[in-house]
Amino acid sequence: MSLSVQVQFLKDKKAYSGSELKPLENYLVHHLSGSSIIGFRGPCDVAFDKMVDGEDLKARSPIRGSDMIHFIGEFFHMDLVSGVFLQRLMAGIIQESVFSLTDKKVYLRRSGDDLYLHDKKFSISIATPSVNSTLLHFAVNVSSEGTPVPTVGLNDFKIDPDVWGPKILEKFKLEIEDSFAATYKVRSV
Amino acid sequence: MSLSVQVQFLKDKKAYSGSELKPLENYLVHHLSGSSIIGFRGPCDVAFDKMVDGEDLKARSPIRGSDMIHFIGEFFHMDLVSGVFLQRLMAGIIQESVFSLTDKKVYLRRSGDDLYLHDKKFSISIATPSVNSTLLHFAVNVSSEGTPVPTVGLNDFKIDPDVWGPKILEKFKLEIEDSFAATYKVRSV
Amino acid sequence: MSLSVQVQFLKDKKAYSGSELKPLENYLVHHLSGSSIIGFRGPCDVAFDKMVDGEDLKARSPIRGSDMIHFIGEFFHMDLVSGVFLQRLMAGIIQESVFSLTDKKVYLRRSGDDLYLHDKKFSISIATPSVNSTLLHFAVNVSSEGTPVPTVGLNDFKIDPDVWGPKILEKFKLEIEDSFAATYKVRSV
Amino acid sequence: MSLSVQVQFLKDKKAYSGSELKPLENYLVHHLSGSSIIGFRGPCDVAFDKMVDGEDLKARSPIRGSDMIHFIGEFFHMDLVSGVFLQRLMAGIIQESVFSLTDKKVYLRRSGDDLYLHDKKFSISIATPSVNSTLLHFAVNVSSEGTPVPTVGLNDFKIDPDVWGPKILEKFKLEIEDSFAATYKVRSV
Amino acid sequence: MSLSVQVQFLKDKKAYSGSELKPLENYLVHHLSGSSIIGFRGPCDVAFDKMVDGEDLKARSPIRGSDMIHFIGEFFHMDLVSGVFLQRLMAGIIQESVFSLTDKKVYLRRSGDDLYLHDKKFSISIATPSVNSTLLHFAVNVSSEGTPVPTVGLNDFKIDPDVWGPKILEKFKLEIEDSFAATYKVRSV
Amino acid sequence: MSLSVQVQFLKDKKAYSGSELKPLENYLVHHLSGSSIIGFRGPCDVAFDKMVDGEDLKARSPIRGSDMIHFIGEFFHMDLVSGVFLQRLMAGIIQESVFSLTDKKVYLRRSGDDLYLHDKKFSISIATPSVNSTLLHFAVNVSSEGTPVPTVGLNDFKIDPDVWGPKILEKFKLEIEDSFAATYKVRSV
Repeated sequence: MSLSVQVQFLKDKKAYSGSELKPLENYLVHHLSGSSIIGFRGPCDVAFDKMVDGEDLKARSPIRGSDMIHFIGEFFHMDLVSGVFLQRLMAGIIQESVFSLTDKKVYLRRSGDDLYLHDKKFSISIATPSVNSTLLHFAVNVSSEGTPVPTVGLNDFKIDPDVWGPKILEKFKLEIEDSFAATYKVRSV
Repeated sequence: MSLSVQVQFLKDKKAYSGSELKPLENYLVHHLSGSSIIGFRGPCDVAFDKMVDGEDLKARSPIRGSDMIHFIGEFFHMDLVSGVFLQRLMAGIIQESVFSLTDKKVYLRRSGDDLYLHDKKFSISIATPSVNSTLLHFAVNVSSEGTPVPTVGLNDFKIDPDVWGPKILEKFKLEIEDSFAATYKVRSV
Repeated sequence: MSLSVQVQFLKDKKAYSGSELKPLENYLVHHLSGSSIIGFRGPCDVAFDKMVDGEDLKARSPIRGSDMIHFIGEFFHMDLVSGVFLQRLMAGIIQESVFSLTDKKVYLRRSGDDLYLHDKKFSISIATPSVNSTLLHFAVNVSSEGTPVPTVGLNDFKIDPDVWGPKILEKFKLEIEDSFAATYKVRSV
Repeated sequence: MSLSVQVQFLKDKKAYSGSELKPLENYLVHHLSGSSIIGFRGPCDVAFDKMVDGEDLKARSPIRGSDMIHFIGEFFHMDLVSGVFLQRLMAGIIQESVFSLTDKKVYLRRSGDDLYLHDKKFSISIATPSVNSTLLHFAVNVSSEGTPVPTVGLNDFKIDPDVWGPKILEKFKLEIEDSFAATYKVRSV
Repeated sequence: MSLSVQVQFLKDKKAYSGSELKPLENYLVHHLSGSSIIGFRGPCDVAFDKMVDGEDLKARSPIRGSDMIHFIGEFFHMDLVSGVFLQRLMAGIIQESVFSLTDKKVYLRRSGDDLYLHDKKFSISIATPSVNSTLLHFAVNVSSEGTPVPTVGLNDFKIDPDVWGPKILEKFKLEIEDSFAATYKVRSV
Repeated sequence: MSLSVQVQFLKDKKAYSGSELKPLENYLVHHLSGSSIIGFRGPCDVAFDKMVDGEDLKARSPIRGSDMIHFIGEFFHMDLVSGVFLQRLMAGIIQESVFSLTDKKVYLRRSGDDLYLHDKKFSISIATPSVNSTLLHFAVNVSSEGTPVPTVGLNDFKIDPDVWGPKILEKFKLEIEDSFAATYKVRSV
């Protein structure tokens, strides 16, 4: 394997305010070098001046949750188009995970980079460019309380967030490393 | 919408030999301009000198099927990493489609860019670079006959390939266009 | 056509201060998604801290006009070299337009990205990079009043700015779309 | 000036067959290092297997002329979009030149990368990518004889091709160098 | 030679505070256009808010020297990986220079982008990206006084900094131009 | 560490003919995935049709040696400018190694990507682009016999090639991985 993604799931809870989505945060604060993903559990409240999604900004849609599992990824030498495709792939990985972990085989609907159960939102996500890298935030609700729209959370699926978070983080890592490996073995046409 | 993907599902059956996966094929033969995906139904038999996947080449794995639905995509101004992520996203779209179209809610397992039902292979896929563009081939079995490994096909799921092909092609188009749109609306950090 | 450029000529007048030349402005304020050009009529007065052209900054050259037709373009996934060539191509398109619209066949001289009638300046322009995109500002004088150097304007050519602006905007759109189309149809060597 | 373009107008006549449009030709045959343009006078006859323009290939349009002025440019570290914009800019430079050199002020019509006098074609051009570089061919008729479509040539404009060729080559050089210089002096936004 | 690097060694001494390492500084202040390197002699004291090296930031390592020879390079259309390799190449050029200029053939040890004599540090360096360009700072001690760690300087090697600075600047220029020339003469595989 | 370079020094001798310098060779033949360097010992004889250096091709300079240590590197997602800088950095690493391993402290002169002892050539090298990757060949003489120009080899320095080869390969690996690491820790300006 040639590119490896550093990952770490933080033991302590931590709030997400949007200001964490910036270049080198994973390195300067969490000491991961290179392309990396940090996972953690905590509430979410993004002020408008920290909101990077123009669609949310225009609609003045609050981004909030009382208890979520967050992932912040920084990917060097990767463009934004790749970042967006990756984001949606991550949504797919979570969709598969919830399906396989629930007794009733809960099948979330993916719409772009969002996951829903019927009309209840399960996740939020954004991919954004910086001079250094492409950055991703992906978060899913643990609890459906404190959210500005109707939501569903891991609690509703009887999934233990503290077990699930680190496991899904590992799946993200493998998917990305395996995808890069696929670029090293194909003849051009 | 700023980037549009041209798509066409061919009315006539057509064999896939691997030589179709080359730059400008969709333009020169099928008259689609720009990033595009052609879909068609037909058998598949890729000779070793047309095989681009180094892994298959090393293993001398035959690539063959008596009846498949094929998609050949050409994407300009897109790098290979994006192409690989897109390939896997397409696998996810097919996975969702089979789930929603089957009475018993068949849930295919995605492993990289491949889809399986238990250990039976449902699809083949490759992404490869050219000087002009990134090219993708994605194909799923209609019939499980004539394949070098145990496979499953659309027939096993009671899905009509001639209805399904054009519909999934449309979903690919929307996913890609929507992903590009996501790169146009985000503030940098 | 695979890449389309969204364009809109604003009905209301609007002043240009330089601060409009920033990423996502066309999306956040004018609701155009993707590569786009906004056109409008209005005065121009760019403060030194909003000036991006280093040459003007060093010379402390004021950028001002009492009545101009402005175009602000944002182009995603395009590098600055392309942006500069495009800027000059836009100057050429304007040059052709003035020639064909004037009875006396006024032939403006293009010098880099500037257009002149003899030594009178007709236009101002800049191309600049952002993390998201390449941005362009191109503006021509309607009136020659209120400019810091001798100028000529559409009024001098008896060209109605409110008719001309939307028409030239359409020509820019076609030229860019057609140029991208040219990248989709050529075999590599 | 940071990037310089090497140019040379060949003293001897030389036929153009299409096979000259390949990477390193200007270096290996004409000893120009780096981004460069070779100019020469000679007939033109491009066989179908050397034709890179997919549009011509599909239409089986012959590319032929008995006497033309040719320019072959190779540009390193430049993408195809830039190459296409540059091609059209070169068309504009030739348009200006013919206008200023003719007593009757002949104004050629530019349509994409082609120049016409009414419906008579004056020029041919293509931009194509290689692994090393972006390559351009631009040629204008000296004589209108031997062409597969109605054409017009420098002879019709009383322009001496042997004087004109080297001069326009110098103008191309200056335009490209000046365009690159424009990318070195602008603040990002 | 196709790409030329503009260089200038300043006659007057000048302090380095870190704020000089920014896009267009060499152009706006020193009037060099395009890829360029400025050299000068002076003290160095970089405040933490101007420090770009995350490693130094995390360790809160002061960057200071009473008398140094500085080089500030700005390279357009060059990515950060190239910038880092170039930085280390520059370290190698300095290593060769000190070896050849010292009677006792002092052989500095290069560790990444740093040069040492035994455990005494001789140089500091950083490469950083901007929207416009890749920027480099490379500096060597003249005197070993006033540095936060044990250092060695040109004085210890009996090398005249005012003669050495301009000479090494010229060597940097030639190495970079020659390296770019190497990209213009090789057939692809 | 985020990017790792796979390296392997072959146990058996192997001739180098130039045809080994092609995309995926290290993967298809030697089973290294991703950016990689293969080292081996053997003779060298590159036929003109396998020669990629245009300078050698023009001069019809034979590339030959009876016994050499070879390194073939393939680097994905790296451009040619980086490849050339890396090549020269590798020359510097070899220069340091020979200096430190010889009793008399032999100091090779580096000129571009070549190493010399006085006027005797010690090494050959080339960097070349492919659609997939940037490829490098670097080789040093073991014996000075059978070379078309006066040469010097590891034998002349009493350096055991079979010990030296694997060690220098490890140094290349560390230098490249460390250089990539340097791109992950720096704030943009």
